[in-house]
Amino acid sequence: MNLPDFGEVLQAADRIRGEAVRTPLIYARAASEKLKRPVYVKPECLQRTGSFKFRGAFNCISQITAAEAPGGVVAVSSGNHAQGVAAAAKIFGLSAKIVMPQPRRLKVRSPLGRRSLLLTVPPMIATPSWRRSPKKSGGSLCPPMTTPGSLPGRGPWGWKSPMMLKPPGLKSPLCSRLLVVAGWWQVSGWRSPSGAKIYAVEPEGFDDTKRSLAAGERLSNTQLSGSICDAILTPIPGELTFALNQNQLADVLIVSDVQAGQAVAHCFKSLKLVVEPGGAVAMAAVLQGQVPTGDGAIIVVLSGGNVDEGMFAELVRG
Amino acid sequence: MNLPDFGEVLQAADRIRGEAVRTPLIYARAASEKLKRPVYVKPECLQRTGSFKFRGAFNCISQITAAEAPGGVVAVSSGNHAQGVAAAAKIFGLSAKIVMPQPRRLKVRSPLGRRSLLLTVPPMIATPSWRRSPKKSGGSLCPPMTTPGSLPGRGPWGWKSPMMLKPPGLKSPLCSRLLVVAGWWQVSGWRSPSGAKIYAVEPEGFDDTKRSLAAGERLSNTQLSGSICDAILTPIPGELTFALNQNQLADVLIVSDVQAGQAVAHCFKSLKLVVEPGGAVAMAAVLQGQVPTGDGAIIVVLSGGNVDEGMFAELVRG
Repeated sequence: MNLPDFGEVLQAADRIRGEAVRTPLIYARAASEKLKRPVYVKPECLQRTGSFKFRGAFNCISQITAAEAPGGVVAVSSGNHAQGVAAAAKIFGLSAKIVMPQPRRLKVRSPLGRRSLLLTVPPMIATPSWRRSPKKSGGSLCPPMTTPGSLPGRGPWGWKSPMMLKPPGLKSPLCSRLLVVAGWWQVSGWRSPSGAKIYAVEPEGFDDTKRSLAAGERLSNTQLSGSICDAILTPIPGELTFALNQNQLADVLIVSDVQAGQAVAHCFKSLKLVVEPGGAVAMAAVLQGQVPTGDGAIIVVLSGGNVDEGMFAELVRG
Repeated sequence: MNLPDFGEVLQAADRIRGEAVRTPLIYARAASEKLKRPVYVKPECLQRTGSFKFRGAFNCISQITAAEAPGGVVAVSSGNHAQGVAAAAKIFGLSAKIVMPQPRRLKVRSPLGRRSLLLTVPPMIATPSWRRSPKKSGGSLCPPMTTPGSLPGRGPWGWKSPMMLKPPGLKSPLCSRLLVVAGWWQVSGWRSPSGAKIYAVEPEGFDDTKRSLAAGERLSNTQLSGSICDAILTPIPGELTFALNQNQLADVLIVSDVQAGQAVAHCFKSLKLVVEPGGAVAMAAVLQGQVPTGDGAIIVVLSGGNVDEGMFAELVRG
């Protein structure tokens, strides 16, 4: 398998510049005081469409011409990737067909644009079949993580971003003894700056990446629902992401739904950011003290904020 | 009366650099599409202590020595200024005495630091007396807006910030035909970049600035409570802020509590930012179409995010 190299990540960064938000790196004071070391967040909830998924979707679709995709683009997504694809397709004047296995209130209500068509299908039946044979839809598939086309788009939030700069208050350059903590799916296509260790986080009961890395082969989750971290529940690691994660991850951390919910409340109260449960798993792992001790800075990726207002209200109230 | 000049604003910017967050300027896509012109937000809810008030408090306290203030610093505040003063006093090793006219749940619960003392007093009785004779507390008063000491600290979020840069997607430089919309108290000490017009916003029923500017003299509000915009309910314009506002404001806009609440929900859903009602009045005015028509960019200041989780839950649910 050809893994994307760093040159492709840089090309993706060039493509998405000007369309993707260059999200800031924000000092997380309360978390830093709790851990007694500098903690920063990379709030991809502030990204266009409310999650980091716009990056990969735009990078993918920017390489598809209307002639190549007369039927537009097709995406299979539970929500965030759908919004990224719909927004990117609109920019390039392509129609988008979104196959949504498990509609959720906010994400279905969010405007996908007039040229987008939403198809809702039962999760366990339709998703694998659509993923196997996208051609039957007449469109060009824009997968969230299974091909290099969409994958390196996620790289640029590590490189070419303020994450590489030295934030105020940091004595040593940020890159030295750095830890980066993110949902597993975000670190694929991310290349480690010199010396940084990358930790991925999965929800309890949906630890296919952790088990797969331990086994040396891709293993499935037994369920696809039953966690509030709905944005990050997937059937099995993608071939490409699995291969990348084998090379890149220092470890995979596991958090419970309760811990993810507490991290959502922490982001509300201490950071004034709206983060969805699946986007808060990295903060949950850090607040739980799951990262190895040390004095290096920690960068926590908050990957999305597309959360239903009812669930958000419940979580911030504890 | 000596009004602070631009040199003082620049000095304040130098003082607070490295301690205040340099908050980003974020493109507000949904608001831009609604108004058919570029709208950006300046999210001071991401500022240290959750509101822009840290800027003025730090600037004020940085000019007080321990010898000058053996009793520490005293602040009269309903919440945001209290947190700014407590945080800034801690940085300089001074004790802080906070006189809070009207305690609210979140703000009282927020840690003010071990060297801070909280005194709760009835609003209409104690506040004016504390403001008149702060010396009786044995501390050095750090007022939110009545002296040049704390006031120019708020200037730097206009100057010396990304607000002056040209954001991506803007054809013309941001400064030309620019409108800035903010709570009335934030624009004092803010100097307009070339050609920019500054609009202040007040809550319905608490329009002391609008009435005072029309009358040419400072007029009081008849009440100090009864709006969800609790952060911006004040008895009467300060002498200094009134004089500055006479020179600087293009107009004062008025929004209702319902409109402020809708703006909070808008910031939740479309921007993934936690903004308190009083911090969302500028967005409310913009969403209501209250700014004059034109094609120039609009910058909306979101001044704080210290909102009680119960109220926030109610507002985002509509």
